[in-house]
Amino acid sequence: MQRRILSRELPTVPPGETVTLAGWIHRRRQLASVSFLVLRDRSGLAQVVARSDDEIACVASLPEETVVEVTGRIVANEAAPGGVEVVEPRITALTEPAATPPVELWRPELTASLPTLLDHAAVTLRHPKLRARAQLAAASLRGLRCRLGELDFTEIQTPKLVEMATESGANVFEVDYFGRTAYLAQSPQLFKQMMVGVHERVFEVGPVFRAEPHDTVRHLAQYTSIDVELGFIRDHRDVLAVLREAVAAMVSGISDYAGDAASLLDVTLPVVPQEIPVIHFADALALVGAPADEPDLEPAHERALSEWALAEHGSDFLAVEGYPMAKRPFYTHPQPDDGRWSNSFDLLFRGLELTTGGQRLHRPSDYRAALARTGQDPAAYTAYLEAFEHGMPPHGGFAIGLERWVGRLVEAPNIREVTLFPRDLHRLAP
Amino acid sequence: MQRRILSRELPTVPPGETVTLAGWIHRRRQLASVSFLVLRDRSGLAQVVARSDDEIACVASLPEETVVEVTGRIVANEAAPGGVEVVEPRITALTEPAATPPVELWRPELTASLPTLLDHAAVTLRHPKLRARAQLAAASLRGLRCRLGELDFTEIQTPKLVEMATESGANVFEVDYFGRTAYLAQSPQLFKQMMVGVHERVFEVGPVFRAEPHDTVRHLAQYTSIDVELGFIRDHRDVLAVLREAVAAMVSGISDYAGDAASLLDVTLPVVPQEIPVIHFADALALVGAPADEPDLEPAHERALSEWALAEHGSDFLAVEGYPMAKRPFYTHPQPDDGRWSNSFDLLFRGLELTTGGQRLHRPSDYRAALARTGQDPAAYTAYLEAFEHGMPPHGGFAIGLERWVGRLVEAPNIREVTLFPRDLHRLAP
Repeated sequence: MQRRILSRELPTVPPGETVTLAGWIHRRRQLASVSFLVLRDRSGLAQVVARSDDEIACVASLPEETVVEVTGRIVANEAAPGGVEVVEPRITALTEPAATPPVELWRPELTASLPTLLDHAAVTLRHPKLRARAQLAAASLRGLRCRLGELDFTEIQTPKLVEMATESGANVFEVDYFGRTAYLAQSPQLFKQMMVGVHERVFEVGPVFRAEPHDTVRHLAQYTSIDVELGFIRDHRDVLAVLREAVAAMVSGISDYAGDAASLLDVTLPVVPQEIPVIHFADALALVGAPADEPDLEPAHERALSEWALAEHGSDFLAVEGYPMAKRPFYTHPQPDDGRWSNSFDLLFRGLELTTGGQRLHRPSDYRAALARTGQDPAAYTAYLEAFEHGMPPHGGFAIGLERWVGRLVEAPNIREVTLFPRDLHRLAP
Repeated sequence: MQRRILSRELPTVPPGETVTLAGWIHRRRQLASVSFLVLRDRSGLAQVVARSDDEIACVASLPEETVVEVTGRIVANEAAPGGVEVVEPRITALTEPAATPPVELWRPELTASLPTLLDHAAVTLRHPKLRARAQLAAASLRGLRCRLGELDFTEIQTPKLVEMATESGANVFEVDYFGRTAYLAQSPQLFKQMMVGVHERVFEVGPVFRAEPHDTVRHLAQYTSIDVELGFIRDHRDVLAVLREAVAAMVSGISDYAGDAASLLDVTLPVVPQEIPVIHFADALALVGAPADEPDLEPAHERALSEWALAEHGSDFLAVEGYPMAKRPFYTHPQPDDGRWSNSFDLLFRGLELTTGGQRLHRPSDYRAALARTGQDPAAYTAYLEAFEHGMPPHGGFAIGLERWVGRLVEAPNIREVTLFPRDLHRLAP
C-alpha cells in the first residue's frame, strides 16, 4: 500500500505522479460522462474524477460519508481545490457504505435547526464550518498554553468533586459520593489560589459545572474554563497585563494553527493592543448615562462601552476596573484608596464580557474579616485559609470561558453552537 | 520599587549590583554574629546574609513561610546556591508573619505521614520535592501537547456528565441533574471515537471519575486521563507508534522544562527506543511460566516481563499485544487471524501497566454484533452508533493516567503522593 498523503499536500506533488488519499466522500456529482467525487480529510477537500465506466459505477455505489482510500494520478486543473485533481482513481471502501446523513454535510451552509444539529452532533460536527469552530478553540488553547509556559506558568489539575458548595452555594450539582453528598466544582478558584503558594504562577484548563436552572443562550451546565492565577503582583493591573498576553496568544494561536478555519468562517481576528484600555466602573456608568449607584453593567452598557473603546482607542477590548465590592466575591481585594470599589475588572470583547479577574485578598486577617462580613463560616474554608495563614503573596487572576471566546469570535447567537456536546437544563445526550 | 528578579537569575548578575528578590522565607539560621535567610521563589533558593543588628533583628521577627521582598547587594560565595548571595538586605514583609507550618518545609526530606501531608496539602505541596513532582506532571503534558500538535492532533473537551453508565456500568458516580440521574464520565472513550469522525486525530487531557469502592494505593476517585485517538490506521501497531511518540515527548518535556525537578528527585529518565518492543500475550504468558489460559497478567508477571524487556531489548517499555478478547471492552477490534485475541495492547513501564490501547471496531455491523454478543442494548448507544453508520475509518487510541506516569517515574508507593488533592473512598477535602 502506498503511503497516504493529505489533500493539503496535493499541490506539492508533481503532476503525473500517483498518490493515495483517504477520507470521507464529501460529495458526488454525476454528469453525463464523468463523475466527480470530493474527498474530505482532516486537511481539506480534494477532487477526484471518474471517467471509465468502472470508475463511474464505483463512485455511484458509494454514498456520501463512506470512508474510502483513493489511489490515482495527479493532474493540474485550475478549477479544482488546490489547483490539482486526481484522475484514473482506484477507490477502495474502508468500511460499509454509509447511511444517508441527517443533514447534507456538503452544503456550504447548514440550515438545520439547532436541536437537529445537536441531536446528531457525532455526524453534524463533521461539517467544515462546525469543524472549523472546534479548530478555533483548539488553536486558541495551543497558542495560550505555549505563551503561559514561556511566562513560567505551571499547569495544574484540581478536584472537580468538592465537599462544600462554597463559592456561591447556589446552582451546584450534587453527587452521591460513596454515600455522602459531594458537589461538582463551579470553578477551581480556591485551588488555584492555594497553588499560587506552591508555584507562584498556575493555570488550569478544565470543565466547570453550573446547575443553571434557566434556559438561556449564554449558559451551559458544563463549560471549559481557562483559569490563570499569579503571585507577586502590585495590583490587578499586573493581572490585566498577563490577561493581555493570554488573549494575544489565543489570537496568534488561531493565526498560526487555524488560519484556514478562521478564513472559512469569515472571522476577523481582533488586534490586541499592547496595553488594553481601562476605564473605571464609575466612569463607565457615567459614559453610558447610567445612574451612579448602579451595581452592575447591563448588556446594553457593555455594548455601548465596547463601541466607545473601538471609536476612542481602536480596540476590540476594554477593561472595566473597580467594580463595586458589594457585587464581587468575598476574596476580592478592595481598591486601596476607596473601599467601595474593588481591584477587579471585567474584560469586554466586542460588546460581551469575556473575562472576570482581579486582585485577591492575601492577608489571613483580611480573609477572616471578609468571611465575617459576608456571614460565612470559616470552618467551611479550613484548607483554603491555611494557605493564607502560612504566607501567601499578593496575587490575582482571571478566568476565560473557552466557548464564550469562540462564540464571540464567530458571532454565534447561542453558546451551544460552539460547544461539542452541550449540557443544559434539558440536554444530557449525546 | 526595583524590578524583581528570580533566584535562578542571580548568577547572571554582576557582583556588586543591587537586586530585589521576592518569595517565601524557606529557612533561617541564626549564628552568633550573622543570620542566614534562605529565600524560596518559583525558580529555586537564594541565600541572604544579615550582619547588622537591625538586619538580624528583622530576620528574627519573620517566621518561616512569611512572604518577603529582599533588596540587597550581590556578592560571590561559592558555598551559596548558585555561587552568589545577597548581603546588606532590606527585608519587607508582604504579608503578616506566617504561622508555623504543619511540617518543616525546609528539611530536605518530608517525614510526615501521608494523611498529614494530604490534610495540609495547601502548605505541604510547597516542599521542593512535592513541588518538583507537580512540575514533572506539567512538563510531561507540555512536551506531549507540543508533539501531538505537530502530529496534527486536535485537542477536544467532552462532557463529564453523561446519560448512561455505558462503558462498564459499575463504579460510576451518580449526579442529581435537574431532577434526573446523570453519571460522571469514567472516560471520554465514546466521545473521542466519535470525534475521530470529525478531526481524524484528537486528544483530551481531563478528569475522569471512578467510584472505586476499594482502598488501594493505585486507585483514585478522580484522575487525569490523557486520551488519544486517531483514524486511518492499519492496526494497533500504528497506535503504538503514536504512543511511542507521546511517551518520548513526555520525557523530552521533562528534560526541557523540569530538568531541575527531575534531578532533585533523582529520577532516571527512561530512554524511549525508536520502536517499543512488542510481545504477544500468549508468548508473554509462556515467558513468565503462566498457564496458557490465563485471561490477564498478574502484577508479578508485569514486573517479570519488564525485567525481560530491559535485559533483552534494553528498554524500560514493553508492549504486550493480543490480550484475550474476552477481557477487553466491546469496541475492541479482534486480531484478524484469530478472534480469541485482540488488536489491543498494554504498555508496561518499569514493571507497571501505564497505558491500555488498541484498535477499535469501525464497521457498524461489527458494533451491532459486539453489543448483541455482550448482551447490551443498542438504544443506550444511539449517538455513538450513529457515527459508525455514517462512516468511520479504521481507528484506535490509548489512554495514559498522568498520575500513574509520574508515580512510576518517582517510584511513589502510593498514587496519592503524586496527586495534588486526591479524592478517594474516604477523602473529599482539601
